[in-house]
Amino acid sequence: MALKKLGKQTVKFINPPSIISTASIVGPKEGEGPLAKYFDTILGDDLCGQKSYEKAECCIFKDAANLAIEKAGLKKDMLDYMLGGDLLNQIITASFAARDIGVPFFGLYGACSTMSESLSLGSMLIDGGYADYILCITSSHFSSAERQYRFPLELGTQRTPTAQWTVTGSGGAVISTMGNGPYITHVTTGKVIDFGIKDANNMGAAMAPAAADTISQHFKDTGFSTKDYDVIATGDLGSLGMELTDDLLKKEGFNISDIYTDCGVEIFDSKKQDTHAGGSGCGCSAVVFSGYFYEMLKQGKYNRIMLVSTGALLSPTSTQQGESIPGIAHAVTIERMV
Amino acid sequence: MALKKLGKQTVKFINPPSIISTASIVGPKEGEGPLAKYFDTILGDDLCGQKSYEKAECCIFKDAANLAIEKAGLKKDMLDYMLGGDLLNQIITASFAARDIGVPFFGLYGACSTMSESLSLGSMLIDGGYADYILCITSSHFSSAERQYRFPLELGTQRTPTAQWTVTGSGGAVISTMGNGPYITHVTTGKVIDFGIKDANNMGAAMAPAAADTISQHFKDTGFSTKDYDVIATGDLGSLGMELTDDLLKKEGFNISDIYTDCGVEIFDSKKQDTHAGGSGCGCSAVVFSGYFYEMLKQGKYNRIMLVSTGALLSPTSTQQGESIPGIAHAVTIERMV
Repeated sequence: MALKKLGKQTVKFINPPSIISTASIVGPKEGEGPLAKYFDTILGDDLCGQKSYEKAECCIFKDAANLAIEKAGLKKDMLDYMLGGDLLNQIITASFAARDIGVPFFGLYGACSTMSESLSLGSMLIDGGYADYILCITSSHFSSAERQYRFPLELGTQRTPTAQWTVTGSGGAVISTMGNGPYITHVTTGKVIDFGIKDANNMGAAMAPAAADTISQHFKDTGFSTKDYDVIATGDLGSLGMELTDDLLKKEGFNISDIYTDCGVEIFDSKKQDTHAGGSGCGCSAVVFSGYFYEMLKQGKYNRIMLVSTGALLSPTSTQQGESIPGIAHAVTIERMV
Repeated sequence: MALKKLGKQTVKFINPPSIISTASIVGPKEGEGPLAKYFDTILGDDLCGQKSYEKAECCIFKDAANLAIEKAGLKKDMLDYMLGGDLLNQIITASFAARDIGVPFFGLYGACSTMSESLSLGSMLIDGGYADYILCITSSHFSSAERQYRFPLELGTQRTPTAQWTVTGSGGAVISTMGNGPYITHVTTGKVIDFGIKDANNMGAAMAPAAADTISQHFKDTGFSTKDYDVIATGDLGSLGMELTDDLLKKEGFNISDIYTDCGVEIFDSKKQDTHAGGSGCGCSAVVFSGYFYEMLKQGKYNRIMLVSTGALLSPTSTQQGESIPGIAHAVTIERMV
């Protein structure tokens, strides 16, 4: 059998999976941002009625999962698989949510790249003939992430200008052999790239080389150029990481400036909302894609976009042991029609 | 296109991937156990010449990856993908190793079920036509796991009789469209199952219901019976979890006692080695499969086995917040010939 691969890192689907529904649930701060009207649910309270932020995040994940399933017109037991993850240790959000959703589950961890990782693997499972319906979903929560990765919120630690604000939210998409688009047509799977950044408060810089590497590889593998895309959206590089990615790609001979944005830049009004370099987290590209970009594709405002969720592969332990922060980025091409 | 699914949770491959090489590296304690002669490398020092146990684990992972690639007669850049994970927060072992190996990487987290999770997804990617060569690999390390999940070793905390001993080791397999077996013919993907166990020192009991659920579902989906298998091996339930799984399956009408074992029971001589209920960890089923079972299949001593790596989906935080411990188990059928 001939491989369905283009070049080194890209797959082109013969039966492109259709994204038949999406769901997005966000916290109050995200609900005050510029994309507010595109989200399905804006929480009034980021504790979601729970006793801890971890339990709250799980609740948001489950609600987003159930909403995506409902909007697809399905029952839970019609799902063949759920693929997803989150940022918390041992991906407890996704695992505990999967317990309640009760379908075969593949847990993923790609830091903030997990949304496009789940769409990538999910698409191969649909196109390959292993499933009719797959839920791809991730989440993050500002308060659970801050205390796990940085400082307890109660400490009131001052944030650096390069710091980003973890998005509270969960976004999911049901992909299927059926439906009439938008379709996932290509995936370009990232390598782990490390330029030696060691500042855990500057994730954008740590992830930018991986984003640039995956995007340029995508162009090389597919023969697409920037003219073939309406938008290229990285996951959560923020304003600094976005600038670096743009520069790195220019050095590679690809000028994407006109069509380039970042989900972390789009989700907040950084100046008004004091989010410094922008949004971040597994939930960032998940809700911006599931809310905003999916709607733009459905409405026909965009015909072809590339979603490039970006992950910083660090742990507090690796940082304490002097390690630098490698990044990874997975690209997914989504087209209105095929 | 007709789905390649059998029943609810099982996939049967049309082009079963061949496991063309495996590699297993273990620590000194594992090297004193009954399976010692089947491992490729037994470390003299579980620090592996590194300054921390986390760095040591990464080193073991990389060495196992390189050895599997070399034994397959490949160069790194011939791999289409690497799929894998480990137990450390943010799967730093796999992520940092992937940085050096430099191939497209999908990070997975299924706790100790990750080895069969990686073989499951990897097989779908091979059979589906997305790759010619995939490395599926996981690791664990006693000392890095103890301090992350339980207590610093320096504290000398007494272990309960139900406790297990995390295997220090890494096992990997290169699967391919080419080669002449053994072959991965079926995968049964597990659901997250929770019987309400809250004792983090009794993981075997927490994971047993998931193992029983996946094994019984596999029989229902495929029509196979215990007569069709030479061995069914769970991942790391240990002696207690194994007994519970056996009992649960009998209640479901499946008596697997004669062909049933557990990688965590096989790897240590519990009485002599003071490992209580047996071995555990992501590396446990990885090295026992890559070392022992792969060799038994190659030699023709077994014709068809089922590997059911089992994961306990907890974090210290979830336990502190009063959550029970859900489990998950993924089954992979491996046959000498197809």
